Amino acid sequence: MNEPLRILPLGGLGEIGMNCLVLEYADEILIVDCGLMFSDLDHFGVEFAIPDFSWLRERKQKVSGFLITHGHEDHIGALPFALKAGIRAPIYASAFSAMLLKERLKDHGLESEADIRVFRDGDRLPFRHFSVEPVPVNHSIVDAFAMFIDTPHGKVIHTGDFKIDPTPFYGSQLEESRFRKAGDEGVLLLMSDSTNVERHQHTLSENRIYETFENLFAAAEGLTVIAMFASNVARIGQVLSLAERMGKKVAVTGRSMDQNLRLAQELGYCVDAPNVVIPVEEIGNHRRSDVVILSGGSQAELGSALQRMAHGEHRQVILQPKDRVLMSSRHIPGNEKIIGRMINRLFKQGAEVLYEAVHEIHSSGHASRPELKRMLEWTKPKFFLPIHGEYRHLVHHGKLGEEVGIPSDRICVVENGAVLELSDAGFACVEQLEEPRVLVEGRQGGDVSKLVLKDRRVLGERGVVFALLVRNEESRRIIAGPELVSKGFANETLAPHLMDEARKLVKKLINEYDRNLREGQPEPDFQETVRVELRRFFERNLGHKPTVMPMILDI
Amino acid sequence: MNEPLRILPLGGLGEIGMNCLVLEYADEILIVDCGLMFSDLDHFGVEFAIPDFSWLRERKQKVSGFLITHGHEDHIGALPFALKAGIRAPIYASAFSAMLLKERLKDHGLESEADIRVFRDGDRLPFRHFSVEPVPVNHSIVDAFAMFIDTPHGKVIHTGDFKIDPTPFYGSQLEESRFRKAGDEGVLLLMSDSTNVERHQHTLSENRIYETFENLFAAAEGLTVIAMFASNVARIGQVLSLAERMGKKVAVTGRSMDQNLRLAQELGYCVDAPNVVIPVEEIGNHRRSDVVILSGGSQAELGSALQRMAHGEHRQVILQPKDRVLMSSRHIPGNEKIIGRMINRLFKQGAEVLYEAVHEIHSSGHASRPELKRMLEWTKPKFFLPIHGEYRHLVHHGKLGEEVGIPSDRICVVENGAVLELSDAGFACVEQLEEPRVLVEGRQGGDVSKLVLKDRRVLGERGVVFALLVRNEESRRIIAGPELVSKGFANETLAPHLMDEARKLVKKLINEYDRNLREGQPEPDFQETVRVELRRFFERNLGHKPTVMPMILDI
Repeated sequence: MNEPLRILPLGGLGEIGMNCLVLEYADEILIVDCGLMFSDLDHFGVEFAIPDFSWLRERKQKVSGFLITHGHEDHIGALPFALKAGIRAPIYASAFSAMLLKERLKDHGLESEADIRVFRDGDRLPFRHFSVEPVPVNHSIVDAFAMFIDTPHGKVIHTGDFKIDPTPFYGSQLEESRFRKAGDEGVLLLMSDSTNVERHQHTLSENRIYETFENLFAAAEGLTVIAMFASNVARIGQVLSLAERMGKKVAVTGRSMDQNLRLAQELGYCVDAPNVVIPVEEIGNHRRSDVVILSGGSQAELGSALQRMAHGEHRQVILQPKDRVLMSSRHIPGNEKIIGRMINRLFKQGAEVLYEAVHEIHSSGHASRPELKRMLEWTKPKFFLPIHGEYRHLVHHGKLGEEVGIPSDRICVVENGAVLELSDAGFACVEQLEEPRVLVEGRQGGDVSKLVLKDRRVLGERGVVFALLVRNEESRRIIAGPELVSKGFANETLAPHLMDEARKLVKKLINEYDRNLREGQPEPDFQETVRVELRRFFERNLGHKPTVMPMILDI
Repeated sequence: MNEPLRILPLGGLGEIGMNCLVLEYADEILIVDCGLMFSDLDHFGVEFAIPDFSWLRERKQKVSGFLITHGHEDHIGALPFALKAGIRAPIYASAFSAMLLKERLKDHGLESEADIRVFRDGDRLPFRHFSVEPVPVNHSIVDAFAMFIDTPHGKVIHTGDFKIDPTPFYGSQLEESRFRKAGDEGVLLLMSDSTNVERHQHTLSENRIYETFENLFAAAEGLTVIAMFASNVARIGQVLSLAERMGKKVAVTGRSMDQNLRLAQELGYCVDAPNVVIPVEEIGNHRRSDVVILSGGSQAELGSALQRMAHGEHRQVILQPKDRVLMSSRHIPGNEKIIGRMINRLFKQGAEVLYEAVHEIHSSGHASRPELKRMLEWTKPKFFLPIHGEYRHLVHHGKLGEEVGIPSDRICVVENGAVLELSDAGFACVEQLEEPRVLVEGRQGGDVSKLVLKDRRVLGERGVVFALLVRNEESRRIIAGPELVSKGFANETLAPHLMDEARKLVKKLINEYDRNLREGQPEPDFQETVRVELRRFFERNLGHKPTVMPMILDI
C-alpha cells in the first residue's frame, strides 16, 4: 500500500471510441477494454485507429488480465493487435462478449492463442493486488458490465458504457442497490461514461421502442426494413418476439446480421420462432406488408445490405413506394453526411425512411445527464475521473461531479496518455504520453505513419508530377529527357498546355546546367533544382502546387 | 402564351447550397440566384461547387436578368463564374446584397463588368414577358426578398430562403397580407424553401436571442466571444445595441467581420455607437467582463479568428478560465466534426463554450414545418415545387403540400438538372441534364474534372509508386533501371523491403522480356506488363495497391 495506484487511459478520453484503460499497482497491471475506433481518414487509406501499445509492451510481464465490459468493437476491436504486440494475459469477458471476441480473433487467425475466461454475474475475479466484481449494466448490447475493482487503496468503479433502463427488453439489468451499497461502503474512484452528458432527457426505454415498432408493424402497407447495429441482439429479439405475436415474417440480410442472429439464438436472446424467420430469398412468397427485414448497413457502410437497397442493387430487396425503412441506430459522428446521402437515395427508391431525429425508433445506449447524476449520487466517490467522451463531454461531466458536491480538485479531466497517480493527496499526472494511437491500414494491415499520411494528403489534394531525366554517368551531361507525366494534377484541357510549358522550363534548366558544367562550375544538386523550379512554376500558374518528383537516372 | 413556361433548377434541389433556378418563356430567361456550395471534397483540392453554366451559355442571348433574393454565398457566390462564362445581364439585388456582391466581384477583378441594379421594396422590375415584384422576407441576413414573378401563364412565387419572425430585430419584415393577397388573386406556382421542413417547432424569434444575450452579458465573469456568420449584420446590430445599453465594449476580429461591420454601419443596420466599438488591440484596457468580441470562424475555417483562439495563437485574444464563447450560428452539414474539434480545443484553453444544441443563442434562418405550412395556406398555389433542400427535405415538403390539399400530381419533387415545362396539364420533365455541377479548385482556379478527382482519390488512399526504365531505341533492350521511387505508399519500416522485392520482380520481368526479344517474339507492351505485375505484387503483399506509374524512356 506504499505503492501508488496508477491509472493510464490509452483510449476513449478525448474521443468517442477506442476505449482502453490501464490500472497499475506495484508489479501488476489490469487493462479494462481494448477497443478500436473507425477512422474518418478512410480517404487516406486509414481504416481505424487502435491504442499505441508501446507503454504496455515495455511492461508486458506485469499484465495479469484484460477486463472486457462488453462486446462492442470500440471495446474489443484492438485485442487482436494487443495479442500481436505480445501482450498476453487472460481475457475476462461475459458470455456474449466472449462470442463476439472469438469472431474477431478468428478474423486474425488468433482464435487458439487467446485465453478467454467467461464470467457471470456474481463471479469475483481474483488477482494479486486487485479483486474484481463484474456488475451488470444496461447498454445497447446485452451482457454488459461495470467493473467494481478492489485495489489496495480502495474500491474503483469503472462503469463501462451504460444507461439506466428500468424496463429493458432483454439482457443485463442495472441494479441500483449494488451501486448504492458500494457508495455506502466507500468508493475511492468513479470512472463513468460521459458520451451523452449533453443530453438532458432520460434515455428512452427499450420498451418504448417496442411500442413504436408495434404501431409501425400494424400500420405497414409495404415492406418494413429495420436498419440497426447487428450486435444489438436485444433489439433483434424484440423484433422477433413482436413478429411472432403479430404474425409477421422476419428475414435477415447482411453478413453480421446473419452471424449475430445465430449467436443470439444460441445464447437464448431470441424467441425460438422457427415459423417467424424466413430466408430473404423467400420474401416474395409472403404479403409484402407482413414482411420485416433486419438489415445491416445503418452507418452506410460501402457494400452493406442497406446501401445496396439504396442503390437498387440488392438482389432480394427491391424497394417500392409504401415500403418503410426504419433507421434504428444512432449516426456515428462523422458518418452523418454519408448516412444522409443514403437516406436520400432510399427516398429516391420510393421508400419512406424514418430516422431517430423524427421518430422514436432508437434509444441510445448511453446514460444522459440525469442518469449520470444518479450514478454519481449512488456511488458518492471520493475521486472522479470522467471517461468515454470528447474533451467537452469530460468537462461537462466533471462539472456535473461538482454539482453533486465533489470538490473540484478531486475531479480529473484529462485525455489519453495521461499517466495518473492517485493517492490521498489527489491525482498527480506524472507523465503525458504523446498521442498514444496507431492508425491502421487494412483489416490486418500495417500502421500508417505520420509521414505516409502527410504524403497522401498532399498527393490527394493536388496530384503528382514526375520528371524523368537520363544522365551520362561519366560526362555528367543530361542525355535524355525531360519526360514528364502527371496524375490527378490538372483537368484535361489545362494539363497538356501546362506540361508543355513545364517541359520547356526543364529544358532551359538543362541548358543552364550544361553551361555551368562546361564552365567547370561545381555540380549542383540538379534533381533538387528541377523540383524547386517546377513547383514554383506550377504555383505561379495554378495558385497551388502538386507533389513534384524528379528523378535522374545515371547510365 | 402558346409557349410553355420552363423551369430548370441548376442548383439547390437535392442539396443545401448552390442555389440557382432558371425560368424561361419563349425568347427570355430569368435566373433566380446564382450561388456556390462549399465542398466536402477539400482534401481532394476541391474548394467549392458551382452550377454548370453550359445550358445557359448556349442560350445566353435570351438571359435578361439575374434576380438575387439575398446576399449569402450560396445565392451569389457563383455570379463571378457566370459572368466569366459569358452570361451577362443586369443583376437585380437589394442594397445589402448588392454590397456583398460587389465585394465578391472585386475578389475576381470583375467589379466594373457587372451591371448591378439595386431594387427596393415596392419596386417592380419589368421584363419582356415577365414582371417581378420583390417582396421582403425574414432570414438570417437583412434585405432578403421573395420574388413574385408574373409570367404569361400566371404568378410564380419563389420564396428564396425565408422564415416568419414576428419580432425580427432589424431588417426585412415578412408581411403575411401580401402573400395572402397573391393567394387570393391566384398563384400558379409556389417554389418554397425546404431546408427546415423536418423541424417541427416554430423558429426562435431574433428577439428571444436578444434576451439570451442580455442574460449572458449580465452574468459575464470573463470575456464574451460571439462566433457568428459575418453576414448576419442584424445580429451584429443586436449585439452593439445591447452593449451600448449595458455599458459593454465590443471588439471585432476576422477580416469579413470587419468588412461587414463597416457595411452594416454604412447601411444603418448598426447603432451609431462610437464609444462602444473598440479596436481588438485595446481589449486589455477594459475590465475583462465588460468586453464582447465578435469573431468569424464559426465553421472552424482554417486560420480564422476563432480557430486561432482555439489554438492559443490569436495575437490579441488569449482565452482564460471564466471566458465564454457563444457559437451563435448553425453548423453547416459536413462541418460538424471539425467544428466539434475546435470546440474541444476552446474548452482546453479554459473557456466555456455554449452552442446551439444546448442554449438558445442561435435562431435558424429557415422556416420550420409550421411556418412552411402557413406559406402554403396563404398562397394556395395551383402547383408546388419544393426547392432548397436535400431530396428527403423535398419529399417531406411535397407531403406537406398534400396535407394542405394540393393534389399530389400537382406537386413536383425533382432534383437539379430537370428541365420542367409547366402547363395547365401539369409538370412535364422534358429533359434531365446530367449532374449540372462543376467542382472548382482555388478561389479563381480551374475545374476539377471527374478523371482528376478519381486519380486523386486513388493517390490519396494508397500513394504512388513510380518505376523507371531506359531502353535502347534500336535494339529495344532495357539498358538501365529499374529505378523505383514511392510516395505515401507504405510506412518506413515496411517500404524498403517491399521496394527491394518489387525491384527484383521487375528485373525478372526484364529478363523475360529480353529472352522473348532474342527469340524473335513480337514485342509486348512492356510498360503495361510492368504496371500490371507490380500492382499484383503489392496487392498480394499489402492487401491493396498504390497507383503504379511505370515509364520507359527510349534513347
